[in-house]
Parts: sequence; structure tokens; C-alpha cells
Amino acid sequence: MPQISSRGQEMPASPIRRLVPYAEAARKKGITVYHLNIGQPDIETPQPILDAVRRSDFKVLEYTHSAGNESYRRKLVGYYKRNGISINHTDIIVTTGGSEAILFGFMAALDPGDEVITTEPFYANYNGFAVEAGVVIKPIRASIESGFALPPIQDFEKAIGPKTKAIIICNPNNPTGYLYTQKELETLRDIVKKHNIYLFSDEAYREFCYSGTAFSALQLTGVDDNVVVMDTVSKRYSACGARLGAFISRNKEIVGTALKFAQARLSPPSFAQILAEAAVDLPSDYFTETKKEYMKRRDLMVSRLNSMPGVFCPNPGGAFYAIAKLPIDDSDKFCQWILETFSYENQTVMLAPATGFYSTAGLGKQEVRLAYVLNCDHLGKAMDCLEKALVEYNNR
Amino acid sequence: MPQISSRGQEMPASPIRRLVPYAEAARKKGITVYHLNIGQPDIETPQPILDAVRRSDFKVLEYTHSAGNESYRRKLVGYYKRNGISINHTDIIVTTGGSEAILFGFMAALDPGDEVITTEPFYANYNGFAVEAGVVIKPIRASIESGFALPPIQDFEKAIGPKTKAIIICNPNNPTGYLYTQKELETLRDIVKKHNIYLFSDEAYREFCYSGTAFSALQLTGVDDNVVVMDTVSKRYSACGARLGAFISRNKEIVGTALKFAQARLSPPSFAQILAEAAVDLPSDYFTETKKEYMKRRDLMVSRLNSMPGVFCPNPGGAFYAIAKLPIDDSDKFCQWILETFSYENQTVMLAPATGFYSTAGLGKQEVRLAYVLNCDHLGKAMDCLEKALVEYNNR
Repeated sequence: MPQISSRGQEMPASPIRRLVPYAEAARKKGITVYHLNIGQPDIETPQPILDAVRRSDFKVLEYTHSAGNESYRRKLVGYYKRNGISINHTDIIVTTGGSEAILFGFMAALDPGDEVITTEPFYANYNGFAVEAGVVIKPIRASIESGFALPPIQDFEKAIGPKTKAIIICNPNNPTGYLYTQKELETLRDIVKKHNIYLFSDEAYREFCYSGTAFSALQLTGVDDNVVVMDTVSKRYSACGARLGAFISRNKEIVGTALKFAQARLSPPSFAQILAEAAVDLPSDYFTETKKEYMKRRDLMVSRLNSMPGVFCPNPGGAFYAIAKLPIDDSDKFCQWILETFSYENQTVMLAPATGFYSTAGLGKQEVRLAYVLNCDHLGKAMDCLEKALVEYNNR
Repeated sequence: MPQISSRGQEMPASPIRRLVPYAEAARKKGITVYHLNIGQPDIETPQPILDAVRRSDFKVLEYTHSAGNESYRRKLVGYYKRNGISINHTDIIVTTGGSEAILFGFMAALDPGDEVITTEPFYANYNGFAVEAGVVIKPIRASIESGFALPPIQDFEKAIGPKTKAIIICNPNNPTGYLYTQKELETLRDIVKKHNIYLFSDEAYREFCYSGTAFSALQLTGVDDNVVVMDTVSKRYSACGARLGAFISRNKEIVGTALKFAQARLSPPSFAQILAEAAVDLPSDYFTETKKEYMKRRDLMVSRLNSMPGVFCPNPGGAFYAIAKLPIDDSDKFCQWILETFSYENQTVMLAPATGFYSTAGLGKQEVRLAYVLNCDHLGKAMDCLEKALVEYNNR
């Protein structure tokens, strides 16, 4: 049998994947499983943007421009302007999901063996893109005790070496929900400027900020050549299946390089571009409403969590995730047990063990990530389950 | 300014890209440009499959399974069965275009520095995926004189070294239109078996065979662990903008590895999966009709080409491309001149210089690739232009 590459062997499987058979087995037993394990919101995709696709009347489903339809990119300029970000349509490459934008960034700016720094815990798929690009993620620990705030500047200075080419942040953060302040962004600006490296800012959750306003890395001054923003419509419009994102920078060289990667794969998906172009015209109260809904869910979930004995959950300032510290021995074991062995009123909950979001071995063993993507009724029932489960788990 | 990676610098720009401004300038002068330079057919996407998307009535545009919807994969099994290929739905990973399937293959089977062999001329974007994966393409020359048939087995034996991990073919071939015979496929089978390497078979044009029937690499016996087929719906249903393909193998290990790459990017586009699932149910005469149309175009174009003084074009057995040898000094120069300087009755034609399909420097300088993706009326006018242009070019 021909061999699998070392890269293929190193490629991490989805950290939640191991648990999927246990969730399926629970379902087969007739147990309702509340999925707080992934960022798949139950919020309906806005009808007008689905209708834009459904009413489209072209004859040939053609390739688009490799950087995405110009009409869409020009509209996006207006969207960013409303968010205080001033860019041109030529600064944008429309990508197949935010995922591809991250991969383009890694490949365009880093060579195999080069290093990218991020705060830990971090979005688990950064690991996958790093393996694909052959680059090394150097994590700097953010602690649950400080609510996952930006680690002190000395930690960055210590981690930066000759192979460091970029810092990547996710703001507001997946998996912690932490919303970086303008001051923290300015700290990062000073670091990337001093060391002449890139700042990759994954802003997939820009619309969902509760403790303040989102401050984009593209709003920083004096680092036009350093900043690349990775974006996506997935969460913004509850349109995860569209697979449409964006790679944005005022640095013409990095955009030109990313365009070559974009050309090799021909074009981003066409239907999704119709949807996303229509989305720019949604009334602004769309976000007011969805944000209100997520905030209600956050308030419910976080207060329920913190009322459970031995549980600590910092209040997330944005996105729709929280990391909670639980009174458990091993989050992987617990997340399996709650699916495999536990149920309460014929219901249970699927959580993501936080170990998958740390690359330092041993971290996250008492933590889980919860996505508040379900309505308050379901979320409340999921919290009931978790509360009972923690008691039962420790008494078993 | 932070640096671009070496990989980013090495990444080839689209070989046709350089000519785009000349085509745009011609259009601005009011000249009609016939695009034979890219594989974007003017054939209408079948109405029933567009309607499947337009009539879809879900509420949330969700992520699908990373390997694609199970319902779609199960249907695909039927499609392949009708094509004489027996596989299970678990042998399939639905990808974002055929492009992603090729990249997954390169990354799962080859490490940086490893080699993949292909016949030259070859699909130019293999170069891009090779740079992304850090792998080396070793070309074996197929000659226009032999109609681009599979080069002799000794040429493969000579090229295979310790770093060779795969052979990739495109069948029927882009850019040559050559259709490999069962015997040629069996030759390749013996080679990959003997050397314990992979056979990647890019079968994007399976439906369009004129000189015989397509023989899939998945129909070879005794090499289940070696064969990976890369497929796409782009050309099959004139749905290039869908961005939906497939990575198919009976080798569980390589499929499991590709799945990890698929998980990192979450899922293939959802709308496209609705379209493609409906496409499996198209009546079989859909292909009869489209094939008849392409054959008419091929016959027109190839006979027109071979009637021009000094032009030689082997008759392609499949796909919708042909490579023609022209009485010119330099195909890059000629393809620019025909856009920039020439016009006939206010019309001209855009061609792809064949140099972009060879990696050996100096090859393809007298050859161009033509895609017969336009209707016979437009194709005939494009041939009129080319005929006049060749005379004028050599008399200038």
C-alpha cells in the first residue's frame, strides 16, 4: 500500500469528531442531544438573502472572477465603511469561507518552518491550516482567571524569534468569547510594527459584541502593510453553508500573492456570492435583533453556569462561545460520559472539551467550550442537564 | 514591510492573466472577443438543477458534513455505477471543486520535496497546487506528433525515483483532449503497482468522449489502494460556479486522511450540493445531447484548423480542448498581438499560449490551446479571425 505523507499523518482530526459516535448512539436511544459543541446557530438565515438566490435568473452557472465578483466586492466596501473600516474593493479577495482566507494568509506570508504566534486557547482549525502550510503555531497562554484577556506584552516579546512571521488573533474570540479592546489592539500594533511581522485578525464574529464595540485591526493606523483581516459571512448572517469569506489587506503585495492562490482554485462559489451581495443590503436592525437574541442567550447560559457549584465562566464580551471551568477530572472523559452514560428527562448535552483548543499538553482538562447557538428554551434545558450531570459525574 | 513567503513568490500567476488587459482593451475599442482561452462553456446549466436550488426551502443555511451530505454521496454511488464504477458512499469526499480534490491528494500523499509525475503539456493549475503543497512536478513529454498519446513506459521508469509518490493524469485530457485507452490505463496500473505509488486520475471531462468510452482509473483491478479519482460537476453540468467536486478512493487510509483536511475547512458549499444531488437525476439523454453538441464543435474547429496553411491539430478524443501547432514564432507574442493589434470585421479571438501548459522551458512556443466552448456560429467566426490573423501576423 502506498504511504500517507507525514503531513497527512500529522494533520489533526477534528477534536470533537471522536465524540460524534457517542452523540449518534444517544440519539438512537431516543435521547435529545443539545449541541453546544459547534458554532452552528439555529438562527434563521434572513429570508431576503435566501430569496436572492432563489430568484436569481441566470442561464449558466459560470466561474466568477478569482477574487470574487467585482459587484460584490464593491458592495462590501460599503459594509466595511459602515463598520468604520475604510478600504477599496481591490483590497478584498473573496474566499471560500473564512477558512480559505486563513490558509491563504499562512501560505502567502509564511514558509514551512516559520512561526505564527497566537493566544491559547485558540480556534482548533488553525492547527489544521498550520499543518497544511507546514508552519508552526506558538501559543501564548491567556488564562481563564483573567477572562482570557490579551497576555502581557513581555510574553509576546519572549515568543518572537527570527522565524516569527505573524501573530494571529480571533476577535471577538472563538473559543473564549473575549473581545479585545482598542488598547489591546494597539499593543499588538506596536509589536508587529517593531518586529516587522504580520497581524492576522480573524474577525468572523464582528457583529456580535456585547461589552463594547468591535475594533477592527484595519482601524489601526500606521500598519497598513502588516494587517490582514480574515472574514466570513458564516456567522454574520447565519449562513455557514454558504462557504464565503474574505481576505482583506491594504498591502498590495500580500493581496497580489493571495490572488495567485485564488487563481489556482479558479473562483469562490457563485450562489454564495449572490446571497452575500444581497446581505449587504439587509436593514441595519437585522444585527440589532440577532445581537439582542445572542445576548439573552449569553446572559442565561453564563448565569446558569456560574450558579452551579464549582463552575466558573468568565462573561464573554463577544462571539457566541464561552469557556467554563468545571469541577471535573478530565473534560474529554466528561464530554464522552455525558453522551454515553448520562441523561436527564431523556435529554443530554454535547460540549467541546477545551483540550482541543490548547496545544500545550495538559491544559484545558477542566474546561469545556460551550456555543450558545440554541434558543433560550433549549439552552435552559441543556443547562439543566449539565447541572445534574456534574453532580452525578462526581458521585458515580 | 513584512515579507512575502518564498512559496508565495514561487506561486505561478494564471498563465492567461497577462493577456486579460489586452482582451479588455480590445473590448473597450468595441471589438468582439471570442474566448477560446478558458474552459467556460456557453452551454446552459440544466434548468431542473438550477430549479432544485431555487425551490429549496430550508430555513438555516447550515454547514453540511465535512465529507458532503450523505444523501448526495449515496446518490453519487448510483451515478458512478451507471458509469461502470463500483464504489461506496464512504469512498467519497465531496470537495470544493475538483481543485480541492487535487490539493487534498497532493497533501495527503506527498511531503514537501516529494515528486509527482505527469505528462506534459498538463493542466497549468497543477503547478499552483504543487507549490502550495511544496511538491515537485516531474513532466514526461507527450508529443503533438503522436496526438499526445501516453509516452512510452520507459519514460516513466526513467522518471521514477525514490521521491516519486504519485502519477497524475487528466483523462480525457485538459489541455490536449487526448482520451487514454484502457490499455494505456493498464500500463499505468502496472507502473504504480510495481513502484507502490499512487495513481491520481483527474476525470473532470468523463462525459465528453468522442473516439471511445471513458475508462476510469477506478475500473482498474488490483490497484484499489493506489487509485484516487478527482472529479467535479463543473464541466459535466456546465456548472463551473458551483465549486463542487469529489475525492474518491477505495483506500480507506487516504480517504481518512483527506477527511482530516476536509474537516479543517468545515464543509463544501451547501447550495452546490443541492444542485449536484438533483443533477444525478437528470435524464440520461442530457449527456447524449451535450456530447453531440461538443462533437459538432470539435469537428468544425479541428477541420477548420487543419485546413489553414501550416496548422496541425490532432483530433481530440475527449474533453473540449485541442492543442494546435501554428506557423508562428512565439505563441505568447501571437496571443497578445491578436488581441492588441489585430481584428477582422471588428472581431478577434483569445487563445491560451501553450507555453503555460509546459513546465520545460522553450516548449509550446508554436502551440496554442483552444477550448471549443462556444456555439458553432461563434466558433466559426473565431476560426475566420484566426485564419486571417495567421496570414497577417506573418506578413506584418
